[in-house]
Amino acid sequence: MEKELIQWLQKKFGATRFATVGIGDDCAVIPASDRDWVVTCDAICEGVHFHSSELSPQDIGRKALAVNLSDLASMGAKAKTALVSLAIPRSCHLDQVKDLFAGMAALGRKYEIEIIGGDTITWDQGLVISVTAMGTAPTTGAWLISNAKPGDQILVTGELGGSILEQHALFEPRLRFAQQWAEVAGTIQACTDISDSLGVDLTKMAKASEVGFEIDLDSIPIAAAAHTLAVTSQRTALQHAMSDGEDFELIIAVATDVMSRVLAETQDIPLTRIGQFTESSEWLATQAGIQQVFRPSGYEHLMRGEQE
Amino acid sequence: MEKELIQWLQKKFGATRFATVGIGDDCAVIPASDRDWVVTCDAICEGVHFHSSELSPQDIGRKALAVNLSDLASMGAKAKTALVSLAIPRSCHLDQVKDLFAGMAALGRKYEIEIIGGDTITWDQGLVISVTAMGTAPTTGAWLISNAKPGDQILVTGELGGSILEQHALFEPRLRFAQQWAEVAGTIQACTDISDSLGVDLTKMAKASEVGFEIDLDSIPIAAAAHTLAVTSQRTALQHAMSDGEDFELIIAVATDVMSRVLAETQDIPLTRIGQFTESSEWLATQAGIQQVFRPSGYEHLMRGEQE
Repeated sequence: MEKELIQWLQKKFGATRFATVGIGDDCAVIPASDRDWVVTCDAICEGVHFHSSELSPQDIGRKALAVNLSDLASMGAKAKTALVSLAIPRSCHLDQVKDLFAGMAALGRKYEIEIIGGDTITWDQGLVISVTAMGTAPTTGAWLISNAKPGDQILVTGELGGSILEQHALFEPRLRFAQQWAEVAGTIQACTDISDSLGVDLTKMAKASEVGFEIDLDSIPIAAAAHTLAVTSQRTALQHAMSDGEDFELIIAVATDVMSRVLAETQDIPLTRIGQFTESSEWLATQAGIQQVFRPSGYEHLMRGEQE
Repeated sequence: MEKELIQWLQKKFGATRFATVGIGDDCAVIPASDRDWVVTCDAICEGVHFHSSELSPQDIGRKALAVNLSDLASMGAKAKTALVSLAIPRSCHLDQVKDLFAGMAALGRKYEIEIIGGDTITWDQGLVISVTAMGTAPTTGAWLISNAKPGDQILVTGELGGSILEQHALFEPRLRFAQQWAEVAGTIQACTDISDSLGVDLTKMAKASEVGFEIDLDSIPIAAAAHTLAVTSQRTALQHAMSDGEDFELIIAVATDVMSRVLAETQDIPLTRIGQFTESSEWLATQAGIQQVFRPSGYEHLMRGEQE
């Protein structure tokens, strides 16, 4: 969400009686007598998050659900149910809409999340798919963006910078990581997912947790597609990995004493240490032994009246 | 949702493990150890549900939340939390977006529902506001669209047919009715809200409940605005009341022996008996003493490949 708007919303809607976590984290958390509910609602739109000419209806549907599952994963949640609200161009054929749901359903089956409701309208403009996903939090509480502590190690899942070429549609929401570690108390301190960019989301995490960080740019896991893109993009592969949106990998804070365990025991998902959170409020990045102040860049939805 | 698509979705996603009520009712119902959750997700779009040139941002925001609160009311639910997903035209000013949230927040305060999260993107097309609203079901279970019994009396709240002139934006979601009767066991058998039209939504309710109905067209409560509109619309006020979408009043099934109590004790909300559900599968309407087969009409979002 946009920086200035989100700050205003946090001030206006920050304190809630029904949610223990509200606007500002990847999901809201609603307390329950057994396990807390974790709820998120993200939309994808024609021309912004996908182009119907480039992606199949199945892949568009898959992405609409996957971006929400990534939010659930970043809270350590177990996915349960989803609602789908569609604004469909009148030119769209019913079979395409069925394919779109088929793409969602296939991913849903993989992570045992069920589509239980929603709403469909037709209109003269572009396709918008808004998904609300609900899951249950770990018994010890959801993984918050705001809970990183000075000294915690910073890990990322997967490889970064490959989103523009293809990964933005085909990424795997990291629910398996959440499932593996959600109930292992004392391991994951804080977590968020990369939607705007590694740089932007890491600084969001540092601000929310009121910590600084030092990262080692030479350790960033760079996707092969980022190198391919760099040949023609006039940017380096590292720049793509640091600044491109929609990687949908996790940024994870773990205490130093459990880091080796998490690195060694995490199943099937590449995991890389890229730095650590610090007591100071500084953001620092080291490359080839030289440390500099870090300035994030990434994708932002600006609107009129908002400062870049 | 569209007839053919919804039938396909019900078949594909009908049986769920996590929801006791899924696609086909006004809301999904998720069982919980204390009170069941009732969840709904409806979007409103520029040019379909509102025109930015005619409605203030506050009223647009109010409507986006109100259509979802109407769904919660139709399940007998107590509203709790909402998430808001916005696709905002790039030409929109930040202040307009704040006004939109202010309109939602004002209605939210009235019914004690809190905005706890969401998502905002900017794009080059029209405004889309998708709201997910969650509430808690009555302890004896949510009011379903599918639970009307032969012999049940049909009541409607408010006055109908006024939506085109103004009520589509200013209607009151009938949460007060839900609050008053949700915990009075044995009164409300089944309920739905009027989004497509009285005719369309009543027949949906009859089909879902596998009952027929007889209604008395002379008893339909017609809004003054429907008479005003009829002067120029070349349709009668009754036609507006039967066929116009977005009245957002409730259609309620009550057992005959409690009808007088519900009619007499309902506070502050006009309530009218318009007919009864029957054992037969026929839909019948009487006007000036003459009974005819009833054919519903209303607003439908058709897409290519779907039959009207």
